[in-house]
Amino acid sequence: MKIVLDAMGGDHAPANTIAGAVLALKEYSKVSRLILTGDEPLLRAELAKLNYSDPRIEIVHTTQVVAMEDQAIDAVRRKKDSSISRAVDLVKNGDAEAVVSAGHTGAAVAATTIKLRMLEGIERPGIASYIPTEKSTCVLMDAGANVDARPEHMFQYAVMASVLAEYVLGYKNPTIGLMSIGGEDVKGSEFTKETFKLLKNSSLNFRGNIEGHDLFENPVDVVLCDGFTGNVVLKTIEATASTVFRALKRELLKTPIRKLGTWLARGAFRAVRARTNYENYGGCPLLGVNGICIIAHGSSSPLAIKNAIRVATEFIEQRINPRIVEALRDYNASRVKGSE
Amino acid sequence: MKIVLDAMGGDHAPANTIAGAVLALKEYSKVSRLILTGDEPLLRAELAKLNYSDPRIEIVHTTQVVAMEDQAIDAVRRKKDSSISRAVDLVKNGDAEAVVSAGHTGAAVAATTIKLRMLEGIERPGIASYIPTEKSTCVLMDAGANVDARPEHMFQYAVMASVLAEYVLGYKNPTIGLMSIGGEDVKGSEFTKETFKLLKNSSLNFRGNIEGHDLFENPVDVVLCDGFTGNVVLKTIEATASTVFRALKRELLKTPIRKLGTWLARGAFRAVRARTNYENYGGCPLLGVNGICIIAHGSSSPLAIKNAIRVATEFIEQRINPRIVEALRDYNASRVKGSE
Repeated sequence: MKIVLDAMGGDHAPANTIAGAVLALKEYSKVSRLILTGDEPLLRAELAKLNYSDPRIEIVHTTQVVAMEDQAIDAVRRKKDSSISRAVDLVKNGDAEAVVSAGHTGAAVAATTIKLRMLEGIERPGIASYIPTEKSTCVLMDAGANVDARPEHMFQYAVMASVLAEYVLGYKNPTIGLMSIGGEDVKGSEFTKETFKLLKNSSLNFRGNIEGHDLFENPVDVVLCDGFTGNVVLKTIEATASTVFRALKRELLKTPIRKLGTWLARGAFRAVRARTNYENYGGCPLLGVNGICIIAHGSSSPLAIKNAIRVATEFIEQRINPRIVEALRDYNASRVKGSE
Repeated sequence: MKIVLDAMGGDHAPANTIAGAVLALKEYSKVSRLILTGDEPLLRAELAKLNYSDPRIEIVHTTQVVAMEDQAIDAVRRKKDSSISRAVDLVKNGDAEAVVSAGHTGAAVAATTIKLRMLEGIERPGIASYIPTEKSTCVLMDAGANVDARPEHMFQYAVMASVLAEYVLGYKNPTIGLMSIGGEDVKGSEFTKETFKLLKNSSLNFRGNIEGHDLFENPVDVVLCDGFTGNVVLKTIEATASTVFRALKRELLKTPIRKLGTWLARGAFRAVRARTNYENYGGCPLLGVNGICIIAHGSSSPLAIKNAIRVATEFIEQRINPRIVEALRDYNASRVKGSE
């Protein structure tokens, strides 16, 4: 498999991207070529620090970087030699099968959308993200690619996320819930009510509206929301979990007795922390573009980068994109029948 | 002060509403009259169970209850003798200064909006909710009254929430953040970008976009979001916090050593739990209606009901509604000047 990594993307790039690339090359022999886009001297220096060389590495020198404050589409149009732009070009030209980036999410979405175009039948790309639930993992989509979504986009997201849940997570006929306010069918915004109807009138395994507590306690396999809501939900989950841990830590360190207790119970804290650690999920597939793009967390550690590369390999192996096109055709056919 | 409690509202009504009413009467001597709307024999039976009588209690018998699956406006139109409808009538007629309800939120919003109408200059009501941050408390508005908000409503929410933060929480010239995706000015949906402009061009103390992690770590005094997003955020915070606690509990009980550790450190767990316990906040004011309405959590405990009644007394004492009308006039005047 040939994968390209945007080596300049992320808050701690290129140190963490290069360290993550090295971890991935050591672990995944199926990666036959890992192309790194970025400032070549910088990338070579990072590789030298790790004292690592590998004939599977190829560096494509680029001179620009997309900054966090750049407007996404602007960045793609103006910075043609940015690490993300060139990485996507490599996928477009068939030199790589997938691109992985921890950089500016909007720029990755814009670059892939403009250069690779959409899959047949898909109007907008969406980010699929993984959330750890009480007992397993669910897919939340869209996590922020499309902040002004229309109900029809949501239907397409439902199909794409179902394919992902089935072929990557192994859920048979995945259940789908629509994030709303109030579990009852009649509740929600105009947007969710319209989306509800589209999903209900399809042959998708739609279970209705869900709310915050359903995310973890009574989870569906796929949680649907528009990109704005999805992004806010994900960040709120992250923020709440770390705030609870931080508050606990402060209290646990207050007295010697509590410190002793914490030491005795340390295994429990570690276990919960590990389960909520985003690094193990690695990256979120951008679904809908005609190519493979895995979006990693901006603050990705080397471990997270390695796992994002793993996600790219799964995506290639499972032929997710052709399956999406096929599934969409089937579901669209069943909709037409349903409304006759 | 004369307050009316929707005694049939809430998942555990009337047991918890009556028990909460009794707690409030015992603690707040400033409540000169507490009117309870609901099924009189049922309410009398609950009072008898607690062996409590108080000349300040008055029961107004009602024959209907709004169910969770009822459509809000429908419920107000059809169930004219529901406990919430009659409670709002009492405020309208001047028999009570404030209404407290843990029942169907939409019905409380619809009943007050239809019967009491809006404050001068306000187009839509919004729910102000309290979130515990690392060091204090912030106001999140709207928590779910207006799920199809327009930017102009958001400006009005900013003014109302600022008045609440100043006069109830005691924050001088409260800081305001707009919940969005990406801290940079250019990021967000069409809706948040439009709202951003309105806030920026006002004399409000607007600090720009905020994201999930800012909620707790670097908080503003007022977090603005549309009712859909606000409701989802609140429920996600609640769900995430309880999921983390539940996961920890499961792990902490796994071995005798961990159990011992937990016992030694139990004070720390209690302290964090207490800080995140919604019962202490009691109720959320519905701002914008021409009258006082405090919305309590559907699963309110007696303690939560008592505190919701306390919130109503604060609201009356601080003359929040007249201050809102005054503040809106001032801010609107400064906007006109700004755009000349």
